[in-house]
Amino acid sequence: MKWSKALIPTLKETPADAEVASHILMIRAGIVRKLSAGAYSYLPLGFKVLKKVETIIREELNKEGALEVLLPAMHPAEIWKKTGRYELLGEVMIKFNDRTGKENVLGPTHEEIITDLVANNVRSYKDLPLTLYQIQTKFRDEPRPRFGVLRSKEFIMKDAYSFDCDLEGLNKSYKKMYDAYCKIFKRCGLKYIAVEADAGFMGGDVSHEFMVPSESGEDEIVICASCSYAASLEKAECVKTQKAKAKEQKLKPIKEVDTPGMSTIEKVSEFLKRPHTNLVKTLIYLADKKPVAFLIRGDNDLNEAKAKRFLGCDILEMADEADIKKATDGPLGFSGPVGLKGVRIVADYDVEGSIDFITGANKKDKHFINVNIDRDFKVKEWADIRYITPKDNCPKCKKKIQIKHAIEVGHIFKLGTKYTKTLSAKFLDKQGKEQAIIMGCYGIGVNRIIASSIEQGNDKDGIIWPHSIAPYNVLIIPVDIRDKKILQATDKIYKDLTKERIDVLLDDRDQRAGIKFKDADLIGIPLQIVIGKKAVSQKKVELKLRGKNKVTLIDQTKIVEKVKKEI
Amino acid sequence: MKWSKALIPTLKETPADAEVASHILMIRAGIVRKLSAGAYSYLPLGFKVLKKVETIIREELNKEGALEVLLPAMHPAEIWKKTGRYELLGEVMIKFNDRTGKENVLGPTHEEIITDLVANNVRSYKDLPLTLYQIQTKFRDEPRPRFGVLRSKEFIMKDAYSFDCDLEGLNKSYKKMYDAYCKIFKRCGLKYIAVEADAGFMGGDVSHEFMVPSESGEDEIVICASCSYAASLEKAECVKTQKAKAKEQKLKPIKEVDTPGMSTIEKVSEFLKRPHTNLVKTLIYLADKKPVAFLIRGDNDLNEAKAKRFLGCDILEMADEADIKKATDGPLGFSGPVGLKGVRIVADYDVEGSIDFITGANKKDKHFINVNIDRDFKVKEWADIRYITPKDNCPKCKKKIQIKHAIEVGHIFKLGTKYTKTLSAKFLDKQGKEQAIIMGCYGIGVNRIIASSIEQGNDKDGIIWPHSIAPYNVLIIPVDIRDKKILQATDKIYKDLTKERIDVLLDDRDQRAGIKFKDADLIGIPLQIVIGKKAVSQKKVELKLRGKNKVTLIDQTKIVEKVKKEI
Repeated sequence: MKWSKALIPTLKETPADAEVASHILMIRAGIVRKLSAGAYSYLPLGFKVLKKVETIIREELNKEGALEVLLPAMHPAEIWKKTGRYELLGEVMIKFNDRTGKENVLGPTHEEIITDLVANNVRSYKDLPLTLYQIQTKFRDEPRPRFGVLRSKEFIMKDAYSFDCDLEGLNKSYKKMYDAYCKIFKRCGLKYIAVEADAGFMGGDVSHEFMVPSESGEDEIVICASCSYAASLEKAECVKTQKAKAKEQKLKPIKEVDTPGMSTIEKVSEFLKRPHTNLVKTLIYLADKKPVAFLIRGDNDLNEAKAKRFLGCDILEMADEADIKKATDGPLGFSGPVGLKGVRIVADYDVEGSIDFITGANKKDKHFINVNIDRDFKVKEWADIRYITPKDNCPKCKKKIQIKHAIEVGHIFKLGTKYTKTLSAKFLDKQGKEQAIIMGCYGIGVNRIIASSIEQGNDKDGIIWPHSIAPYNVLIIPVDIRDKKILQATDKIYKDLTKERIDVLLDDRDQRAGIKFKDADLIGIPLQIVIGKKAVSQKKVELKLRGKNKVTLIDQTKIVEKVKKEI
Repeated sequence: MKWSKALIPTLKETPADAEVASHILMIRAGIVRKLSAGAYSYLPLGFKVLKKVETIIREELNKEGALEVLLPAMHPAEIWKKTGRYELLGEVMIKFNDRTGKENVLGPTHEEIITDLVANNVRSYKDLPLTLYQIQTKFRDEPRPRFGVLRSKEFIMKDAYSFDCDLEGLNKSYKKMYDAYCKIFKRCGLKYIAVEADAGFMGGDVSHEFMVPSESGEDEIVICASCSYAASLEKAECVKTQKAKAKEQKLKPIKEVDTPGMSTIEKVSEFLKRPHTNLVKTLIYLADKKPVAFLIRGDNDLNEAKAKRFLGCDILEMADEADIKKATDGPLGFSGPVGLKGVRIVADYDVEGSIDFITGANKKDKHFINVNIDRDFKVKEWADIRYITPKDNCPKCKKKIQIKHAIEVGHIFKLGTKYTKTLSAKFLDKQGKEQAIIMGCYGIGVNRIIASSIEQGNDKDGIIWPHSIAPYNVLIIPVDIRDKKILQATDKIYKDLTKERIDVLLDDRDQRAGIKFKDADLIGIPLQIVIGKKAVSQKKVELKLRGKNKVTLIDQTKIVEKVKKEI
């Protein structure tokens, strides 16, 4: 391909709305262009990368016997209502009525649709196991689309779904996908970590996320440098530390104090001159519409994923002012466990050791000080419901943990029968008995692989692609296209490489060498062959490896061989 | 691939809602499944066909230097309002508001989006010519989705757009695409006809449709058996025949007659006992909101596409009762040209020869008889605005024409500057002068290629795929998988063919031979290798060509070679 025919509109300036490296470089290198918030057009260079990533994904999934399908993006709303996810996904789901008045949604994912398909087309254990996948555009009305293609409203997902007769089968299918994912991310050149994860709105028991550590990542992962422990921040368990029990201490009498306008931990702590650790937050939530009070030590944060998992509820949402009034008879910002009636209380393990602590008094501008469990109120349910912090230790080996930002590029789930039961996806087993199919689901953010690769592979000059997903493997840069000898050498090398089916781009523009070099580094093709006057006079060319400072002079006759070796 | 792992849910029964061969067979052969009206899931077999068609399209377009991109499906409504197509497409366009309240549409096509992209990324004549394309899902809320994937609400389109400096360039780009389309449809095994077409809502001057003749086609094409003339029904010109002029005849006096409740040509004709040819219909339309009366002879039909082209208006719509009242002062069903004031009259050439004819009297239940042009009203504008009929002759060679049903699989347009002017897609020419880019656009209905192939390739037993887009090229049918010798021969042939990278499906099911043969014919793989007891004992196998009655006995050692020859 010749640059002059390739539509590569490189930009010198950093686009105003781009914050992270991948976003900036994808715009500057002419990979994508923004159409509207969260919707990007892939230009030819970007499309080539996209296709290479898709091909790697296809190859690895096909090797595992997964079958590719293509499901509609437009779904009848009713099928989403059956599983309750119409409600659950809420505003994230894009909805519209068609001309007949029927409500449709745009697929944010496809568990419902694939399960319905399987329910209608699988009959017997002989049809199982079965893993179906598609590479398809998904739509999610994200509250805050940002970071270019990292969080967008329209994105390409590889979504796979496994169907098995039993748990053993699910475990095998899950393992196959886990292994395929490792191969895919490795082939794409990503440094990734597979972490234990929370299943979130997908449901199911076991789940892993494939994370690419990067400062631009919106997710956080917990890793232990000493052992192999790795988990998402939502999932990471907190070690239960042994604390002195309140009853073994001499306790101060409980007392109501004025805290005018002090409705946050920060304000109360400062006003009463007590450390955050001496406060206990009482957070009122609605779990499937019923009120629950979570008690969390003042310096900790509630981990909603853990809380939800502990309760086993479908929808967990913060109570609003009216709900808080109903549950506690008090205002927002002053909730507390003392005197609370008819509200389920769940306390985090860290609260167990607290004595003479401060809580809200369920009255405007009032707190209690010197509150103590058992004496002033009872806790029946203790659980690990807080976020892990850098001060915590590894739940596995008890050594120091690290919390890092990361980009989620893949997420896999053992769903069990969550969808198959609701949508009647059954099979007849060997005994002729009807059973619910056991399901798993497996997602890859295709666009995110590209952005992650750039986050991990860039320098001040631009992108550094790995060969596997680079739009081209070789960029030929004739320093002056008006020089006949340079042109001759260029033509020959271009033809020779093309003949060998090497993906090669030729910068045939009548531009200054400086501009060509800058653009070359910006778009990040791994191999640059620079054809200059001096080298040509010696029947040589310069070979430059993008991202490495080394430039090698190579005989023109040996360049094809050398390139093949590098790729 | 083994059948038992391939999810091919064949059906014996014809689905209730399927009317045409391709729809019936795509369901029965496990190619697609319906999710909702106009939205289909592609099962593994269907997906393989889809990919093969897409690959052929890509190869031919890439050969012509077209660059592949991928644009969002979700567009800001405002860009469609700029070109006026938001209004024009009306209910066909799917619309929704996102969580910020901004109106979005789902792309029914992408002229607006690609033109905007090019406007922002092309500066100079050096960047041109440029042809961009994508293979992408489009959304149209069709009033009547039907015939399976032939008319659906969600479908895959290959849409290409060319950008040139001048008309000469456009002609070149158009020719390239025309030729590429011919190659694509030929490679897909379709018998197609390229016809002159009306540009419809795309706009522009020159347009061709690629039509696959088929009884199931919703479109009609006009072809001449004697010369090369071929046009869409919308486009086909009517030969202007010489008629006796009214003034040369002795005319009867005009007279108002009672026609109670006679508001259609059929009723008036029967009631007044005059042939359809003696009536002249007066059809009131609004052209860009202004009333126009079209006069058409009673036995002809108004061709709106021609009428619109003649007027050069943006929106042409039938007037409703209120508008008719306003324009004619009369009721719907009784319009006529006599006494009409302030309404533009356009008469079809065929009306020219009519004398002493009948028209509406612009009064309830009244018609005029013995109406004559010039004497009773004037016609200033004559035009070819009716549909051609089987009685007409070829506009080119004047011989007999044929009208046939056909499926539109491709449509190409010379758009000119229709979009580039409105959306400011300009370039600097060699003289440094700013000019509007000249545009063309080129669409292929990818799903329709598949359905058309089945419409043209099927018999009572099922599909007959051409090799180029068949899901597999070879189907191996071991007649009894419990027979060791059959199994051995099967394994060897399967491995040998696979090793040669031939796309082969092995029916490894423990089923009766009759079921396997029926399924084999249904899914239509071009080559069937039947491995039966008798043949195996002679170290032979049977080779059957789907769609042909011939069965050949082939030496097992020669089967790979034979298969390669057939493909």
